Amino acid sequence: MSKKWVYMFSEGNADQRNLLGGKGANLAEMTNLGLPVPQGFTVTTEACLDYIDKDNTLSDEMVEQIEESMQKLNEISGKSFGDEENPLLVSVRSGARISMPGMMDTILNLGLNNTTVEALAKKSGNPRFAWDSYRRFIQMFGDVVQEIDKNKFEAVLDDIKEREGYEYDTELTVDDLKEVVDRYKAIVKEETGEEFPVEPKEQLMKAVEAVFKSWNNPRAIAYRNLNEIPHDYGTAVNVQSMVFGNMGDNSGTGVAFTRNPATGENKLYGEYLINAQGEDVVAGIRTPEPIDRLKEEMPEIYDQFAETAQKLEDHYKDMQDMEFTIDDGRLFMLQTRNGKRTAPAALQIAVDMVNDGSITKEEAMTRIEAKALDQLLHPTFDEEALKEGIVIAEGLAASPGAGTGKIYFTADEAKEAAENGEDVILVRKETSPEDIEGMHASNGILTSRGGMTSHAAVVARGMGTCCVAGVEEIVVDEDNKTMTAGDKVYKEGDFISIDGTTGKVYDGSIKTVAPELSGNFGTIMDWADEIRNLKIRTNADSPRDAQQALDFGAEGIGLCRTEHMFFDEERIPAVRRMILSPDKETREKYLEELEPMQKEDFKGMYEIMKEKPITIRLLDPPLHEFLPTEEEDIEALANDMGMTVEEMKANIDSLHEFNPMLGHRGVRLAITYPEIAAMQTRAIMEAAIEVAEETGADIQPEIMIPLVGMTEELEDAKQTVIETAEEVKKEKGSDIEYKVGTMIEIPRAALIADKIAEDADFFSFGTNDLTQMTFGYSRDDAGKFIEEYKEKGFYQVDPFASIDQEGVGQLVETGVKLGHQGNEEIHMGVCGEHGGDPNSIKFFDKVGLDYVSCSPFRVPIARLAAAQAAVENTED
Amino acid sequence: MSKKWVYMFSEGNADQRNLLGGKGANLAEMTNLGLPVPQGFTVTTEACLDYIDKDNTLSDEMVEQIEESMQKLNEISGKSFGDEENPLLVSVRSGARISMPGMMDTILNLGLNNTTVEALAKKSGNPRFAWDSYRRFIQMFGDVVQEIDKNKFEAVLDDIKEREGYEYDTELTVDDLKEVVDRYKAIVKEETGEEFPVEPKEQLMKAVEAVFKSWNNPRAIAYRNLNEIPHDYGTAVNVQSMVFGNMGDNSGTGVAFTRNPATGENKLYGEYLINAQGEDVVAGIRTPEPIDRLKEEMPEIYDQFAETAQKLEDHYKDMQDMEFTIDDGRLFMLQTRNGKRTAPAALQIAVDMVNDGSITKEEAMTRIEAKALDQLLHPTFDEEALKEGIVIAEGLAASPGAGTGKIYFTADEAKEAAENGEDVILVRKETSPEDIEGMHASNGILTSRGGMTSHAAVVARGMGTCCVAGVEEIVVDEDNKTMTAGDKVYKEGDFISIDGTTGKVYDGSIKTVAPELSGNFGTIMDWADEIRNLKIRTNADSPRDAQQALDFGAEGIGLCRTEHMFFDEERIPAVRRMILSPDKETREKYLEELEPMQKEDFKGMYEIMKEKPITIRLLDPPLHEFLPTEEEDIEALANDMGMTVEEMKANIDSLHEFNPMLGHRGVRLAITYPEIAAMQTRAIMEAAIEVAEETGADIQPEIMIPLVGMTEELEDAKQTVIETAEEVKKEKGSDIEYKVGTMIEIPRAALIADKIAEDADFFSFGTNDLTQMTFGYSRDDAGKFIEEYKEKGFYQVDPFASIDQEGVGQLVETGVKLGHQGNEEIHMGVCGEHGGDPNSIKFFDKVGLDYVSCSPFRVPIARLAAAQAAVENTED
Repeated sequence: MSKKWVYMFSEGNADQRNLLGGKGANLAEMTNLGLPVPQGFTVTTEACLDYIDKDNTLSDEMVEQIEESMQKLNEISGKSFGDEENPLLVSVRSGARISMPGMMDTILNLGLNNTTVEALAKKSGNPRFAWDSYRRFIQMFGDVVQEIDKNKFEAVLDDIKEREGYEYDTELTVDDLKEVVDRYKAIVKEETGEEFPVEPKEQLMKAVEAVFKSWNNPRAIAYRNLNEIPHDYGTAVNVQSMVFGNMGDNSGTGVAFTRNPATGENKLYGEYLINAQGEDVVAGIRTPEPIDRLKEEMPEIYDQFAETAQKLEDHYKDMQDMEFTIDDGRLFMLQTRNGKRTAPAALQIAVDMVNDGSITKEEAMTRIEAKALDQLLHPTFDEEALKEGIVIAEGLAASPGAGTGKIYFTADEAKEAAENGEDVILVRKETSPEDIEGMHASNGILTSRGGMTSHAAVVARGMGTCCVAGVEEIVVDEDNKTMTAGDKVYKEGDFISIDGTTGKVYDGSIKTVAPELSGNFGTIMDWADEIRNLKIRTNADSPRDAQQALDFGAEGIGLCRTEHMFFDEERIPAVRRMILSPDKETREKYLEELEPMQKEDFKGMYEIMKEKPITIRLLDPPLHEFLPTEEEDIEALANDMGMTVEEMKANIDSLHEFNPMLGHRGVRLAITYPEIAAMQTRAIMEAAIEVAEETGADIQPEIMIPLVGMTEELEDAKQTVIETAEEVKKEKGSDIEYKVGTMIEIPRAALIADKIAEDADFFSFGTNDLTQMTFGYSRDDAGKFIEEYKEKGFYQVDPFASIDQEGVGQLVETGVKLGHQGNEEIHMGVCGEHGGDPNSIKFFDKVGLDYVSCSPFRVPIARLAAAQAAVENTED
Repeated sequence: MSKKWVYMFSEGNADQRNLLGGKGANLAEMTNLGLPVPQGFTVTTEACLDYIDKDNTLSDEMVEQIEESMQKLNEISGKSFGDEENPLLVSVRSGARISMPGMMDTILNLGLNNTTVEALAKKSGNPRFAWDSYRRFIQMFGDVVQEIDKNKFEAVLDDIKEREGYEYDTELTVDDLKEVVDRYKAIVKEETGEEFPVEPKEQLMKAVEAVFKSWNNPRAIAYRNLNEIPHDYGTAVNVQSMVFGNMGDNSGTGVAFTRNPATGENKLYGEYLINAQGEDVVAGIRTPEPIDRLKEEMPEIYDQFAETAQKLEDHYKDMQDMEFTIDDGRLFMLQTRNGKRTAPAALQIAVDMVNDGSITKEEAMTRIEAKALDQLLHPTFDEEALKEGIVIAEGLAASPGAGTGKIYFTADEAKEAAENGEDVILVRKETSPEDIEGMHASNGILTSRGGMTSHAAVVARGMGTCCVAGVEEIVVDEDNKTMTAGDKVYKEGDFISIDGTTGKVYDGSIKTVAPELSGNFGTIMDWADEIRNLKIRTNADSPRDAQQALDFGAEGIGLCRTEHMFFDEERIPAVRRMILSPDKETREKYLEELEPMQKEDFKGMYEIMKEKPITIRLLDPPLHEFLPTEEEDIEALANDMGMTVEEMKANIDSLHEFNPMLGHRGVRLAITYPEIAAMQTRAIMEAAIEVAEETGADIQPEIMIPLVGMTEELEDAKQTVIETAEEVKKEKGSDIEYKVGTMIEIPRAALIADKIAEDADFFSFGTNDLTQMTFGYSRDDAGKFIEEYKEKGFYQVDPFASIDQEGVGQLVETGVKLGHQGNEEIHMGVCGEHGGDPNSIKFFDKVGLDYVSCSPFRVPIARLAAAQAAVENTED
């Protein structure tokens, strides 16, 4: 049995996108719908992979099937490929599963040679058209198949036009065009060492091969890497009978959308050109007409097109992006696909289509790209005001949104100014954990150093504050409180505006527009909530973040990190003294100082979240992270603790770790310093009990023990937590209920999750650490090789952005399965950054987690993505 | 249905060791064999666990069953527990699955009180015996059940003896003993606040509970941790009718082995005492007689005992360690168990028993503790000579064996002296990688600092060189070349001797004896080789190690690390220049300098191993490990490379990593610096081809790519290797075959091993890294908490010493299974330190690896362990 490598358009359908590519599948579907499609066939994506696999060779079987299909096409068209009388001409186009640039361009008019061109001339009665088609064909073939520099061909045209004194190509005569053809052929001979192929069959096979090869050209690979498209999809090739939009004033070509892709308005939207081929539209020499004009110029064609457009939209149940050609008064559809649209348009279209009954709410979910919602959640610049904006520098678009305000160069001053009601932009060389409060208080953050994963960028994204990072053109002088952009020196209090979506920095103040979270957005979110199975929680360490997430619809806090609270300026001295305590008694003394502060933190959280669950994680990072690194801070601390600087340094050194990520942290701290875990437990329980009493809310604390890898670790730490919690309950006369759970973030924990589950009320998968340990590299250190990995196309997805289903995902799946085996009542979620990634959310829904937790600004995305997951996973 | 918590001796058998404990199972077995055993019953290990589980409560069911069993024992013995006329007395002993110290001691004579003591006096006609038995019972019960300080009881005896002017306990009269009993009871009252229990049933239940509780006393826990005995085994309790060896000259007690446990000689070996109870033998007041004397004193008893001993040895097919009592002319067997023996005795016994047909070769394998072979592989001190030895200090027994020689304080001088034929002991504060050659040249290594995992200790164990580390009593002055031990100052060239098995340091030179590897050792190794399935390879980086391993029977090299070769004094400058090269061209220039040296290394290895396989691993550690850290070295390198010191430091800093273990190493180097992998491949291929030509050996290089976690990584690095290898083959006109494989040491690699296997000729499981990443902690950093984990009993085994079958082992098993799915031809081994651990070897045999690779001195252990694994895994 030979394999089927080629499908006539009439043999395929829209479901065969993976095999036939998007374009091929849609051409087949339109054929099935009885729409006017120039017929043809598709060589499959599997053929492409086979070709690559066989070291770029078309198998005999494949060649045979292509020839057979061409024979069928001859029969359908009533013409004959290469025929001297009535030659069939075809176009050859690439068409992958997912539309992507970088692939081979279109070749039109394939099948022309010195004989068939004469036949075309005769048959069309238009020799100029025939010879112009011929020279275009050679030019395209030479460029894309034979990789000859385009300019060499253009030079011939220019030469003749100059010689003859023409201004436009259209002035070229038949004889001129014949000369062009001859000179083009000479170029091909010179560049390739071979004659231009005159055999149509040879032309066709070479074009097919060129499409296949283009799958692995550097631009295509780069695009796939950037867009996380797998490299083993391959591309299909579409061979289609030519129709001509340039046969005179009764012909034309155009593109159109069934609805407005910018606003979503339900009205045909597009443009066309009379007497033109597609490439003329692109070339931009003539200005296309809006599609409405066609109604006047060719009312019948317009009606036919409008009807076809509606038919396609009804059929695909989505807004369509179409290409058409009018060949001597006859409409042909060359392509249709779901159209790209802006986020507001996507919402509008989805809501409209549900309201008019075209699609269900479930279908509406899949019509909106979840990630695109992010655009809607942040302030933007007022469009009119922005037109006046003067860009003074550009950096990395590190955290989306627009911000405007007076610049301040320290976090303290930024905070103070904000408290005085000023709009503030914090400008720093780079930020550090001590700047957190100032960052919170600012409308935007600008740093002159650091990349997309710098402290400023990561924290800003978490907060939803706009940030432009690594603006190297700007010189920040923190001592003198100035920033210099070009010639202009900005001082403290001067206004700037920054756009974290584009990376642009503007002079002065620009009006911003607040995001609109009701209307279509609210409708879609409501529908998503009806449909999804996964609960959506948020990662929040402060009341401000908690409130933000609540506003975005979070149903609880999946991860409240307590270490950020330790960095607070007022507390860090006590934290440091606690860490450097010579014995447990001293440590307990400092912990007693910290306990009321931690309690206030938690009370603040409970007051906002009330009965919504908050999972609070006990201290996770290695203690040395809290110690000073600057000479002056070390001196101050030494004085403070009555040590010499040398003693203090030795003390700090003793906490040094070779691999902090694999060191003394997480549950390991709770075991070796149970007094820290006890203090935190006490603070949590007291806070919960007090807020419950004050508000009457039924609060049930969830205490989470991080980094567990062995059942013994969890048992030990849990005992500390339970003993303390029971003590507090007794002291307070409370019968509050609480849960104790653990993170699953160590590979071993996933492997023995059944045993761990016996002692855990809940699991939270920490997929950040789990990814690092499963891959065996840390994010902090991977910088030295990971860019090269990306360039080489090693990643189908960036495993830190979207969960690596093949490896890390296996461990999550194992952990979920075993966890349920070990404890039927267990509740499971994920609190890594993957909790806000739509693809990961689909995976988490499939493996059966109960919730995902993500940063506040990801909550709406997660709500939609969870609904999409519910819809897709039901289909699967 | 109630559970059976108690077994009469007649109900059990030797296979029930897990349920009845070793002692109980053997008492049952002896009962079944019809041997004279004082009857009794065993409360099971499950009862112990239930007791602990119920917060130290004997369940009603259990109490009931114990009482019923006691009733049966009354019937069997014809006596009655607590009876006023004919009282049954019993002993109570602990007996776990594995014999272990730290558990509760024996209680004898339980059942005595003021009434039964009179009956015993009357029945035995020996009131002194009866009252002495009573006071002994109170003393033992008070000590072990009621935890009263022993000395308090001893003080009473001393007081009376002094008052009466006695020298020995035996002079105490009946009245004295009655006084002792009264005063003992008063002590109990005072210490516990309660009367001494007079009810025999109460005595019994309390004794049973005391045994159960003793399972979790700190000493027992510590012993289990040290010996890797699980904490959930529990202990059984044996309650046995008393017999008395102290009833007069027709009574006695003794212990004996069926063969000599020191030499293995096939001759009854032991000692006994007439008119004594077991504790008298231990007390050492009287000197026991050798067992031969019994033949003369009680020929019939001797014959009966000798016959019983033979019967037991035949039955258990192993040398037995027995306890017996002669009660008024009747022999009773109190215990039998497989006897502990020295390593030479174990070999002798195993060989003898195979030769006389008692056991098969397979059984012989299981009679020898694999780890104990280590004793036989190193030089030892001549026993006579050692008697004269003067210990001058003691440190950690860091690497076994004995060494003697002149002391030198630098590696260079040690090396030079050794080359001049001197015996050398290298003395350092601590060693570093630059000392390797000097360490190799020495007979032994002494360091004043560092622990069991210090550089000196780890490297010495790898080399098989004896080492005493961390000898803090000795002051090493490297500048003045002296070491001071107590008052004595040793200078360069003075003789010392060190014993790495005991940690002792001796003054002067002591004669050593070379290990004997033929004889019984050779016989056992030959048998092991016949039986085992696993091949045994070695980890060796130098010809010297390779030769050593070959002598020990290695069948190949499973891991040849190339980085150690880089540290060579002559090369490190070129290595550093290579690493710090500003561009690829410069780097290639330095690599060209290094290539001939690497080739010579590999030639040296191939010349020794010839056709035996060598798996050579491409460079693994992060490059910064090769860079200087000392100020003066940095300066020298800066001068050398024409940089300022600041530039050099910045250069070095730029290679800094936060988590080097999770950083830029392994295959990541081969991908970002393919020129390094290419150089190494070239060196390997050229070496193999040249040695193959020189020797005619059929050499097939195995090139191993470390730290792979993604198929893409392996594919990329493999391409570099194959391109280079093919280039070399072409240049040399060779058609040599070679293999390219990978390490499985990243969790993800194990999870996707099917896909990785498609591109790998072999897998080598790197269980060191795999353990670190699966547990999520590095060995370098775990020090801060791991001791606490061990103390708390978290580990059933140290996962770095014996593979964690539950977690890491799951990944190995997955890797093996998937690997075979992906590639039927694949060859798999392990090259982590677990490759030399008998328990791990059993696991590796079970999951189906082809070989294990271990350090040279572990090779004989691994050969035996692999044979044991084959035997045990067949049984399973």
